[in-house]
Amino acid sequence: MNPPVIDNLLVVGVGLIGGSLALALKRDGAVGCVTGFGRRRETLEQARALGVIDRIADDPVAAVAAADMVFLGVPVGAMKSVLQIIAPGIGPGTVVTDGGSTKCGPIAAAREVLGEKFPRFVPGHPIAGSERSGVAAARADLFDDHRVLLTPDPDCDADAIDRVATIWARCGARTDRLDAEAHDRVLGLTSHLPHVLAFTLVDFIARGKDAAQCFELAAGGFFDFTRIAGSDPVMWRDVASDNARNLGDALAEYIDVLQSMKTLIDQGRADDIEQVFANARRARGLLVDHRRGQTS
Amino acid sequence: MNPPVIDNLLVVGVGLIGGSLALALKRDGAVGCVTGFGRRRETLEQARALGVIDRIADDPVAAVAAADMVFLGVPVGAMKSVLQIIAPGIGPGTVVTDGGSTKCGPIAAAREVLGEKFPRFVPGHPIAGSERSGVAAARADLFDDHRVLLTPDPDCDADAIDRVATIWARCGARTDRLDAEAHDRVLGLTSHLPHVLAFTLVDFIARGKDAAQCFELAAGGFFDFTRIAGSDPVMWRDVASDNARNLGDALAEYIDVLQSMKTLIDQGRADDIEQVFANARRARGLLVDHRRGQTS
Repeated sequence: MNPPVIDNLLVVGVGLIGGSLALALKRDGAVGCVTGFGRRRETLEQARALGVIDRIADDPVAAVAAADMVFLGVPVGAMKSVLQIIAPGIGPGTVVTDGGSTKCGPIAAAREVLGEKFPRFVPGHPIAGSERSGVAAARADLFDDHRVLLTPDPDCDADAIDRVATIWARCGARTDRLDAEAHDRVLGLTSHLPHVLAFTLVDFIARGKDAAQCFELAAGGFFDFTRIAGSDPVMWRDVASDNARNLGDALAEYIDVLQSMKTLIDQGRADDIEQVFANARRARGLLVDHRRGQTS
Repeated sequence: MNPPVIDNLLVVGVGLIGGSLALALKRDGAVGCVTGFGRRRETLEQARALGVIDRIADDPVAAVAAADMVFLGVPVGAMKSVLQIIAPGIGPGTVVTDGGSTKCGPIAAAREVLGEKFPRFVPGHPIAGSERSGVAAARADLFDDHRVLLTPDPDCDADAIDRVATIWARCGARTDRLDAEAHDRVLGLTSHLPHVLAFTLVDFIARGKDAAQCFELAAGGFFDFTRIAGSDPVMWRDVASDNARNLGDALAEYIDVLQSMKTLIDQGRADDIEQVFANARRARGLLVDHRRGQTS
């Protein structure tokens, strides 16, 4: 086991991601003490009972002042208000990082709220998750062999970035650096758009006149497809709001794609339909090969 | 082990479904001999080498005449031409059934081609599959605890229906009866629409300017989502063509749904977005509970 790299970690928002980070660091002996803070006392007590956190913070500013690292595990819509609460406690040695699924919004909030302390904020996004949410779903192995995208601003402290990269490495994850704008554009396509499709499809079918029979006969494809519709609505509401521009653009383009496919279907253009499907299958095959290459 | 129920099974189109049916019946000792017929000699030889079929038919009419049951495991677009080939061999004791993902098209083809032999055709749809296709993917347990929907016409022989229900039971599956129109409408929503969404999304992202980065950073959600885009393009081309009316209607309604969601996102109506997502999560929860209820 390697030596600890953090004496005191403060997790603000002890849910799936924040809780799994605490468990992963504890598993590796990388952290001395984990303190939790959040809106709901009940969740914090559950987290302590589960051994995810060691202490519950009553005074967030004092808890930040005592921490070497603060992890923000809240929905991206709550980042700004949480930063406002914790800002007074951030000292020159404190590193603040987050796990939000969008990056431009949290960075803008941190720049506005933190002022001269902004360079201590290292925006991050672990590409791991589950359709389950909440601290009861937290797992020490959630980040094993997963990637964490760090999207630091040019103003960010190099030392703070290194420390955040180190904790993720101790969680079994691999970190990559990426521009925040590119992050939000790419994840808008590969993560936010698919979530919106799954949520809206399940809602659409559930509201339809054939809902009972659809659910009764739900085929394997549908069931798999809807898995991500079990994700946390508040977290995804915030993602959709925070990344509205990219997601709106992606939706507009994708609606055109569906309209074109509907035309092909209406006109019985079987060869053109097959070409789209075959191209998708080929791309899916490349993705599978790429994954194999990464893990081998 | 129960006694055999079929002496000679002829499988036309020995792929994932036809091959798995043969293996499942063999596993249970329900079949004496399985003969395979298809367009490609190579596939048939592979099927024989894998022990999926025992014999390769050179003359399809003779093979049908020698069979008690004929299973059509071809894409729905090929049903009519296959029925035309086998029709002369169908005797008064032969039962013909299929595994097509749409049911109105195969029924119409059978009615037209089979004439007075039409009552011996029992349309079926096993709700099981894999994004893999081809005989190499065939598995004896593919249908275990899965459902098979039978959509017989009022003209269908009761005895023929019973025999088809019996073979599926011997494969470990449960059969349900359903009107063919309702089948195509409901599956259009729960299976065909999600497949079209997955195929078009992967094709859309693969053709986009951010494709390389999207594939490099493909998050878990996207990867799961795209699993069904690995399905057989020809099979799904035929499904989309055969069920064009229902699928076109479903696509039109779903495009409106996406357009409304885009408006909510553009206008920053976070509460309304959350309501859609929360409704989807609730419906997904009911689906999970329903499945648990079915298997317990």
